[in-house]
Amino acid sequence: MPTTEQEVNMKRLATMIRGISVAMLTSQAADGALRSRPMASPDAEFDGTLWFFTQAGTEKAIEIGQHPQVNVSYVSAAEHRYVSFSGRATLVDDRAKMQELWAPAHRTWFPQGLDDPDLRLIRVDIERAEYWDMLSAAMAQLFGP
Amino acid sequence: MPTTEQEVNMKRLATMIRGISVAMLTSQAADGALRSRPMASPDAEFDGTLWFFTQAGTEKAIEIGQHPQVNVSYVSAAEHRYVSFSGRATLVDDRAKMQELWAPAHRTWFPQGLDDPDLRLIRVDIERAEYWDMLSAAMAQLFGP
Repeated sequence: MPTTEQEVNMKRLATMIRGISVAMLTSQAADGALRSRPMASPDAEFDGTLWFFTQAGTEKAIEIGQHPQVNVSYVSAAEHRYVSFSGRATLVDDRAKMQELWAPAHRTWFPQGLDDPDLRLIRVDIERAEYWDMLSAAMAQLFGP
Repeated sequence: MPTTEQEVNMKRLATMIRGISVAMLTSQAADGALRSRPMASPDAEFDGTLWFFTQAGTEKAIEIGQHPQVNVSYVSAAEHRYVSFSGRATLVDDRAKMQELWAPAHRTWFPQGLDDPDLRLIRVDIERAEYWDMLSAAMAQLFGP
């Protein structure tokens, strides 16, 4: 059973994003532009950290190296649910974590799968989260300053 | 008939976002965090500028005053379509444009409607646009550096 407010909020956020298989990751380019792109969201229970597969040397990998602050949004238009996560992204080469998060669907984007030496994870440590549940007219900041 | 590549790209983007009634607007907070929130997207044909209703003094109005670079993303999970717009946002008090863009549905968020003296528009001049159409495996940068 969750015992602290933060644990309750984590559970709620986990519920809000469950089943949304693609998130939009926004980062800042070297010229200051904010760019976003769809990212397959591994099917892991949210615990305060979000994970995405990428490859070393991609534009987003370079951008987060220069500007770690990112936004990750989850949209379910059908259910009128919108979630915004603000956090710090880091590129990590953690083979054990990759194995844990890997699913056959990721092969669409990474045909070599776990054997790809350039495969990396983007780890986003969440500092602030907000959600809008328009059907219930609920809106809340679940954690953050 | 569209005559230039840019006009063709505008038409394609207009088609990609048509029917998506809520976009996510990402801006940068004073502490550097990137925050996003759902915005009702007025039913206007895309021509290189995006418009959203807001109110003077809201957090997002203040954020774009300090950091005009924003991202606007349109997601249609059902159709596997994802669009990213990068641009510069400005807060404008243009009553004629408000009248043009207003629809009764906006009253959910702005109960006073066009009579609200604090009603404003966020005008986003698009500098870069990219889309992912996952069903057709198409992905393109339609304009920008």
